[in-house]
Amino acid sequence: MESQRYRHEDLFDYGCRVLERLDVPAEDAREVAGCLIKAELRGVDSHGMVRLPPYTRRVQAGVVKARPDIRLLSSGTAAALIDGDNGLGPVVGARAIDAALELARTHGTGFVGVRNSNHFGAAAYYVEKAVTEGCIGLAISNAPPNMAPFGGKKRFLGTNPVAVGIPAGQEDPLIFDASTSVVARGKIIVAAQTGTPIPQGWAIDPEGHPTTDAEQALAGAVLPFGGPKGSAISFIIDIFCGVLTGAAFALHLNTLENLATAQHVGHVLAAVRTDLFVTGGEFGERMDAILQMLKASPPVPGEQRVLVPGEIERAHELRHREQGITLAGPIAGQLARLGEELGVSVPCPRPVSFPSASAPA
Amino acid sequence: MESQRYRHEDLFDYGCRVLERLDVPAEDAREVAGCLIKAELRGVDSHGMVRLPPYTRRVQAGVVKARPDIRLLSSGTAAALIDGDNGLGPVVGARAIDAALELARTHGTGFVGVRNSNHFGAAAYYVEKAVTEGCIGLAISNAPPNMAPFGGKKRFLGTNPVAVGIPAGQEDPLIFDASTSVVARGKIIVAAQTGTPIPQGWAIDPEGHPTTDAEQALAGAVLPFGGPKGSAISFIIDIFCGVLTGAAFALHLNTLENLATAQHVGHVLAAVRTDLFVTGGEFGERMDAILQMLKASPPVPGEQRVLVPGEIERAHELRHREQGITLAGPIAGQLARLGEELGVSVPCPRPVSFPSASAPA
Repeated sequence: MESQRYRHEDLFDYGCRVLERLDVPAEDAREVAGCLIKAELRGVDSHGMVRLPPYTRRVQAGVVKARPDIRLLSSGTAAALIDGDNGLGPVVGARAIDAALELARTHGTGFVGVRNSNHFGAAAYYVEKAVTEGCIGLAISNAPPNMAPFGGKKRFLGTNPVAVGIPAGQEDPLIFDASTSVVARGKIIVAAQTGTPIPQGWAIDPEGHPTTDAEQALAGAVLPFGGPKGSAISFIIDIFCGVLTGAAFALHLNTLENLATAQHVGHVLAAVRTDLFVTGGEFGERMDAILQMLKASPPVPGEQRVLVPGEIERAHELRHREQGITLAGPIAGQLARLGEELGVSVPCPRPVSFPSASAPA
Repeated sequence: MESQRYRHEDLFDYGCRVLERLDVPAEDAREVAGCLIKAELRGVDSHGMVRLPPYTRRVQAGVVKARPDIRLLSSGTAAALIDGDNGLGPVVGARAIDAALELARTHGTGFVGVRNSNHFGAAAYYVEKAVTEGCIGLAISNAPPNMAPFGGKKRFLGTNPVAVGIPAGQEDPLIFDASTSVVARGKIIVAAQTGTPIPQGWAIDPEGHPTTDAEQALAGAVLPFGGPKGSAISFIIDIFCGVLTGAAFALHLNTLENLATAQHVGHVLAAVRTDLFVTGGEFGERMDAILQMLKASPPVPGEQRVLVPGEIERAHELRHREQGITLAGPIAGQLARLGEELGVSVPCPRPVSFPSASAPA
């Protein structure tokens, strides 16, 4: 099957219908599909529709609950603990950022720990919700071991992501979302499929030696970004999300692929009001000033401008909203089979109606 | 002057007496000297006694107040804003982590923004205070521009540090403290003095080209750790510490060397109780488990063991407490001149009384 381009609304509807067939409540289905589509829009296809089939399999296998009883448990004044009852990650994560925002509205700050959750998709999804409410948002999650710690040769850390969203005044908000690995494992999978060597520093082989062989890298482990500093940040994310919340951590986390048991993922979602220390208006002006100052900072030779974190993803989103989302052939094929299995018709590819509409870079 | 080894208590007393000569209250002098000595003990000499002369010059020049009127201003329920009134950074920072800990004791979490502060030394100092109180501590600060943003050729970001301290049960606590640059600027200064090339990736020259020439690097800018991800983290630290708190940010921050005007540095100090979501006992056991798991993770060839973040600094501290702190000749000379100027006798170098006592690696 070839790559096809789709209206994002059509893919969203398809995702909702698939999830509803699994007995996921309509509102929750919209949250999960919305999270996957947001990643597609931002050009982060590793966290897009490709995740729908494994999410589906986990619900079908009974290791993720379609109708969890998510509970808010007691904790500090401006803090809360959420037990996700093994619900779909985006459903639990959305409930948690809502709780953090509610706390921030009342107390100025909100800090929410989450246990008994699952893979929650792109962390940017949650901090964008905070930004929409005019708040600073933070989202971190642990994840099953895929990455060697600095100085180690075996998988121990997840690629534990961190996202921060910060509203501005006239400028676009800052949305930062990054894994703590040098590079997404998906890029190494693509290199292995095409027989391309990978750059030094991305991964190690099973014996712990640096490798440029993608197959050896996949058998080994990806490396943390930024050497010992990134490794420490990833480890600390696991402590906040796993150790502090009562979720699983490190080697105890189950993979998305293991259909025998729940993942027990943990997250922390936090929110801070922008008018905590200065007025909201002043905050917006000050954010505009620092963003404009960064954009005006002289670029290195060969670059046109210094980019704000998340600016590339924002440009992707604007283009994809207008021109549609391109799904690679294998993904489109998987979605077609999933639709057939569940009796959900797959969306029609979008006709190429814009002269400039080529697949996004 | 040659390197000399001193008892850390003697250097601490010397620091206190110098600061008291500047009319710094005794309690505040102990905080500043304690911060500098803690860095020396941890082997982070870039933030140790070398900072005492510039701190002194700033108080003498009237751009830092010896007796600030530090005020706690209103804000959210589990949050507070501190106006440092241009006091010495460690005095203001210590007051702020104390406020965060007080909030955490009452509310479970505490989030304190700081404006009108100055260089606050090693961020580890504040998170160790939190750990001593049985809490998780976070300390971030902005700093004057020394670092190019990712894709930029001119200094824009500070080497904005981040420190996290986490208590454990039987295991040693985790104390992580890192600048957001690839490497401390001090290492490039040493390379320039010795005519040694620096590794690719540490810095760029004034035109924005990668350089291994230490002189060119000093004329240019250091680079953020971890490429675009570390650059974004450093930028976000500036937003939290500068934009949110009402402090200066980015190019508006004044350097430590400029004796004409205040720095207007901002910090954020935060604390979280370890029994927020599980019992304190469970938290300790869970921390012990993840730390032991990390230490047992197989190392890469040539390494004996995977290290816990901060483990090297802890080993330095144990050794330095026993064997003394070594000051490089130029630093010892500066302190001797400072003591002479202010009528404070410098400590006697420590006799080499331990057979194994060589300068720490």
